[in-house]
Parts: sequence; structure tokens; C-alpha cells
Amino acid sequence: MAELGNVLQAIVTICILVFSAKILGEVFSWRKIPSVLGEMVAGMILGPYAIGQFLVINGFQLIQINEIVGAFGEIGGILILFAAGLEMTFQDFRKVGKAGFVIGTLGVIVPFVMGYGLAMLLNYGTIAGLVVGASLVATSISITSLVLMEINKTRAPEARVMVSAAVVDDVLGLAILGVIVSFITSSTAITALGVVEVIAWSLALWLGITVLFAIVLPRIINFISKGKTDEPMEAAATAACFGASALAAALGLSAIVGAFAAGMAIASSRTIEKIREYIKKISTVFSPVFFALAGAQFNIQSFITTDWMFYLFFIILVVVAILSKMVGCGLPAAFFLKSRSKGFKVGYGMISRGEVGLIVAGVAIGAGAISQSLYAAILGMILITTIIAPLLLRKSYVDELPGEEEVAYETGGRDPPDFIPTYPLHFEE
Amino acid sequence: MAELGNVLQAIVTICILVFSAKILGEVFSWRKIPSVLGEMVAGMILGPYAIGQFLVINGFQLIQINEIVGAFGEIGGILILFAAGLEMTFQDFRKVGKAGFVIGTLGVIVPFVMGYGLAMLLNYGTIAGLVVGASLVATSISITSLVLMEINKTRAPEARVMVSAAVVDDVLGLAILGVIVSFITSSTAITALGVVEVIAWSLALWLGITVLFAIVLPRIINFISKGKTDEPMEAAATAACFGASALAAALGLSAIVGAFAAGMAIASSRTIEKIREYIKKISTVFSPVFFALAGAQFNIQSFITTDWMFYLFFIILVVVAILSKMVGCGLPAAFFLKSRSKGFKVGYGMISRGEVGLIVAGVAIGAGAISQSLYAAILGMILITTIIAPLLLRKSYVDELPGEEEVAYETGGRDPPDFIPTYPLHFEE
Repeated sequence: MAELGNVLQAIVTICILVFSAKILGEVFSWRKIPSVLGEMVAGMILGPYAIGQFLVINGFQLIQINEIVGAFGEIGGILILFAAGLEMTFQDFRKVGKAGFVIGTLGVIVPFVMGYGLAMLLNYGTIAGLVVGASLVATSISITSLVLMEINKTRAPEARVMVSAAVVDDVLGLAILGVIVSFITSSTAITALGVVEVIAWSLALWLGITVLFAIVLPRIINFISKGKTDEPMEAAATAACFGASALAAALGLSAIVGAFAAGMAIASSRTIEKIREYIKKISTVFSPVFFALAGAQFNIQSFITTDWMFYLFFIILVVVAILSKMVGCGLPAAFFLKSRSKGFKVGYGMISRGEVGLIVAGVAIGAGAISQSLYAAILGMILITTIIAPLLLRKSYVDELPGEEEVAYETGGRDPPDFIPTYPLHFEE
Repeated sequence: MAELGNVLQAIVTICILVFSAKILGEVFSWRKIPSVLGEMVAGMILGPYAIGQFLVINGFQLIQINEIVGAFGEIGGILILFAAGLEMTFQDFRKVGKAGFVIGTLGVIVPFVMGYGLAMLLNYGTIAGLVVGASLVATSISITSLVLMEINKTRAPEARVMVSAAVVDDVLGLAILGVIVSFITSSTAITALGVVEVIAWSLALWLGITVLFAIVLPRIINFISKGKTDEPMEAAATAACFGASALAAALGLSAIVGAFAAGMAIASSRTIEKIREYIKKISTVFSPVFFALAGAQFNIQSFITTDWMFYLFFIILVVVAILSKMVGCGLPAAFFLKSRSKGFKVGYGMISRGEVGLIVAGVAIGAGAISQSLYAAILGMILITTIIAPLLLRKSYVDELPGEEEVAYETGGRDPPDFIPTYPLHFEE
């Protein structure tokens, strides 16, 4: 067997991950479990910590997470947020702006304080407290977004609140990440003023690029869409998504914040339906890699310990992770949307943690700021919240609207046919 | 400005290359020049040897061809051949099998002998002769395929002959590449028997995987297409394309040979139209990167010399490159298709050289087997044939069928509307 280059190694891994993720996702969705969970479980099963290590043909390891596979996963995350942005125009965003801002802010403060308090109660020390708090802050909206797309609820008022709150949450979460990481790595004192400054700067930047994109991008897309073929329009949409991500990252924000802002800006362009369809196709190659990698990174071995305190702490951490978002996001959402059930939905949707939590934990363990067991507990918490959130969210819709859910499900997330009684898709203010 | 990781650096480069390639491609196609040439010129202009080196913001170089960008280009090449395969079923391929085999074989032998002879005449030595011969052998069918798609001619008899001859040509070309490379790097004697053995083995392998794919893949795709959504089918098509490429590479063939065989196998599945549409969308992210990179790799500086013999040799090499494919492919094609004009078209379509020639030249210069000026001449020859082939091919269709060409052109390569007089799309045997 000839030697394969890095690109072909990556192609083999992507081929196996995409195929098994989509197949397991489909099987899960037959069983009424969110398909993204199937994609993640496929990654866990095939990952280098599980079966992946045994998939060797003639000395060639089939599953290898090299730089190119990592790039596909990262681009997958960017495309998921871009697609989420495409579902919402800037005008829509302004309507739920206040609610999103309050819910997003409280959804950052409550988990941070509760996580910090838990570590303090257990005498883990200030630094560990800051790490635990920061790891609980940022919601990973990707999975929630996909669940909402699957059950055809992206335009429901609670969905809009969730996504806009998640953006505020992401910006604040990344600001806190920035502060904590610079604190851990440089050991300088954190002043209250410094924190406020970083947060204010991040928010101002985010608002700035969002407004900039909303003004510039629809004009470019509308101009280019006048061509005879769709390809230049598709290339422009791709370039907008990638360029905005890189710009956001260059300015110190998260790349996915830029992708979301670009998507939201393009949502008001005339050819939005074609762009949505295009991005959905493109995502097939990238987004399963994102979720499969999230699963593949989990090492079950780090969970084997004889310390019963670890298991106790782990259980309490998971409870805090769930409760803090239910209180921080669900409660104010119930107030803003004037509906207890919608409040629960927003809370459920915000429970899942993801990349930001992983980065916090990774930097902290790398700098020797937290113990191996604390690291394992944080990873386990991120995994469990990611599994629980879509299950709770999907269940909350099934309980409330069984007929509709069934229909949305059967049509694979598309609009229900005309003969089904319609329900209001748009949020009337 | 914050530091960007490799992925975001790649995203910036891909964003600029895809956008400018598609825009320049569109501008070129308004002027009736193949859009792929526009994509390549965009790469030449923005490449690191040209304007790319000056595109620096705050010390950050916008265009950087890192591993991830290279991977996108390589995947682009694979997808282009996969798409070419999707246009042709195995049944179609068998129909033109004999013509394709003869044309492909003569299209390898004639250029190799003429290239070797030219180097011998000029006293360049045996090794340089083998390198020149080998660099002239393999046609790069990607650009020809895209031109045929643009003018809606993929199902014309001469197109089928071209693509099938190019596959034979690719297999033989890569076999010769393998022989020459192992000869250069190991300095062992080339026996006539060894060459025949390698070629026979490559051909047998290629036939084997083509038959295997034709039996297995349509069944898998048809089974998976029974699902409620298109996504598992799309994931299966992606996996088939990537998996087949890797399998071919692992067996010692070129990855694109595997992609073409997989595409051809899937062409007979029931949901072929959906898969074609899907792959076309996916290619928007990858294929402009392939052509832009082909342009970006050209360094104009290597063409600055005071040796007039260099320019003379260069001109003769280009003439030999064109003539050898016109004689080796065009002549037998005119015989098989019983049409002088179709023979010319096949000859034009086979002129462009590409990756294989670049690899031969690269290995040879790396091993010190050829001089810098010979290397530059080979690169220049590859570039010029790549530019000339689509121009000649497109022109040959304009001359013959101005009305049709106009229509196919105006509709961006799609089927003409019903009110336009139709012409036979399928090749009747």
C-alpha cells in the first residue's frame, strides 16, 4: 500500500466521519433523538480514543485528526453559525434586541458566579474558581440551532431570543475567556476596571461589525446576483462568510461571531433562499466533521478514578451548569416572552456548552492552573450539557405541539404541506 | 490585530481566491473566454510571486498558500474529476471504450517519443530526455471537462472520447511517472519488461476498481436515497468520492482516477440529477482554489535569462506539446468518430498538461536531474498548453455551431429552453 499524503489521510478521515455521522444522525432522528447527537456519538465511537485506534489497515490508521481535518471541523462551526445568521435579518434582531441582551448578559453572570462559588465552597482556590466559572459561561448555540432547524422552529419568537442571546453570551463569554486566559498565562492581577473595559470593547466591536456588514454585504450580494449564473453569488456568499469570520478573529472576537453577523446581514438580500440552500449543501461536507470531532475529543479514560469526591463534584457541576442557565436565561426569557413554557425552552436551548468551555479548560490545564480531575470533570460537564440540551429542547416541543412536531419531523424540517393547519411562523411584535 | 491560526489564515486566502477567481471567471466568460482561465489568471495575479506578496495588512500576509489551502486545491481537483465521472455511466464508457483506449494510448506514446527525441537531438542526455518525454505525456482533463460543461457538450460523442481517453492517458501517464521517478531517485536501470509490468499492473488495477465501484456504489446510493431527506444521500456521494480517491491513491494510482471511477459508477444511480446539483454546489468552495493555485504556482522570474537557446528550446517544446497530442489523439479520434472536425476537437481537448507534468519536473529538479532553465521551460509549456487548449476547444465549437454555442453560453451551460430547436444530446451508436 502506497504512502498517502496529509491531504489523502484527511480525506479518508473526513469520508468516514461524514458518512457515519450522517447515517447515525439519520438513525437517531428515526428514533426521535436529535440527529446532531448521532453525529457526535459517531465521533465518540470512531474517535482516536475509542474504536478509531483499532481501525488500522496494513499499518495505516484510517482515522487521523490532522490539521486539515481540524480545519474542516472549524469551518463546519463557522458555517453552522453563518446558516443560523441567514435565518434572521438585522431588522428581526433589533426587535428582540433588548430581550436578547438581558438574557445573554444574565446567562453569563449567573453561571460564572455559581461556578466560582461552587469552587470556593469546595476550597479549590481562586484560579480554579475562575476557570470553572469561565467554562460554564458560553453557550454553544450550534447544536441548538440545528435542532431548531430540524423541527422547523427557527423563526419562532423563542428561537430568535435564544440565538440573539447566544450572540451576546458568546461575546461576553469570549471576553471573559480572554481575561481569564491572560490572567492564567501572565499572572497579573485582574482589576475590576480592566474586565469592564474588555467587555465594553468586545461589545462595541461586535456592534460595529454587525452594523457594517448589514450596510455593505446585502448591496454586494444584490449587485453580484444580477449575473447570469448563480455561481458568482455563491462565491460571494462564501467569501462573505469566510472574510467576516477572519475579520472578527483578527479584531480579537470569535470567528463564529463574525460568521453570524455576516449571515444576518445577507439574510436581507434578495436571493436569500438560494443562498440558504447553497450553504446547506456546503455544510454537508463540513458540519458533520465539527460534531464528530466534538465527540472524538472525549477521552473516557480520564473518567477512571478512585476518588469519590470527583464523582460528587462532577454531579454537582452538571447540576450547576443546567440550573445556572435555567435561572440566568430561562427566567428572564419567561418574563420577556410572557410565557412559562417559552422560558423553559430558552433555558433548555442555552444549556449546552462547547468550544469556549473546551478552550478555557485546555488553556488552564496547559498552564498547570487546574488538576487533571478538574479538567476531566469540565469536559464531562460540556459533553453532558451538549447531550441533554437538544433532548430537553426537542422534548419541550413534542410535549407542547405533538401534531406539529410530528409533521415537521416527517417532512425533514421543511415547511409543512398546505393541507396541514398552519401556525404563526413569524414573531408579531 | 490578533494573531490568526492556520485555519483562519487559510480561510482568508480561500475567501480571496474563490471570490476573485469566480468574479474574473465571470468577466472572462462575458468576453467569451473560458471562465477557468479567468480563475487561473486570478491565481497568477494574486499568487505569492505576483501581487500576493504585497497584500500585507499590519504585517499579516493576506495570501498564504499553507497546507490547508493546498488541501482545498487538491480536493478541488478530485471533485472536478468526480463531477466529470457523474456525467458518464459505465455503460456509456464501454461504448467508447475501444476508441478511448487507442486514443489514450497513442496520446501517451507519441508525446513521450517526440519529447525524448527532441532532448536527444539537442544532446540534453538520456535522463533529461526521459523527463521531457514524461512531462509531455499526461493530459490535464480538468480544464477541458469544465469547458465542455460550460458549453453544454459533456454528452457529445467527442467529449466522451476525450474523457475516456484522458483516463487511459492518466493511468499510463502516472505509470510512466512512477517509472521515471523511481529511475531518477534510485538510479537503477530501466528494463523494458519492468516498464510493461508497471503499465499492465496500473491498467489492471484501474479496470478492477472501476468494475468494483460500478457494481457496489449505485446499490449503496440507491439504498440510502430511500431516506426521508437528501442529506444521507449527499453524505454518501461525498464519502464515495473521497473514499474512492483515497483507495486509488493507496493502490498506487492517482487519487483523481479513483474519483472519476466513483463518479462514473454513481452516474447510473437513480438520484443522479440531485447528486450532480449537490456536487456542483460543493465544488464552488474547492474548484476555484484548484485553478487559482495552478496559476499562483507560476514564477515569472524563472523566465528571465540571457540564453537565447532557452527561448528557442521553449518555443519548440510548446510546438511539440501541441503537435504530439494533435497527432497522437486528434488523428485516431478523426478515424474513430469519422469526422475531421471532431478529431480536431479531441486533439485540442487533450493539449493541456497539468499536475503530472508539474510533479515530473518537480521531482527531476529536486533530484538534480535537470537544469533550472529546463525546469522553467517545462513549467512554461504546461502553462501555455493549459491556456491554449480551452481557447482552441471553445473556438472550434463557436466556428461550427455559432447559434448553439451562443445559446448554451447565454444560459450558462444549462440545457437550452424548450423553444430553441433541440439537437441530439446523446451519442447514438
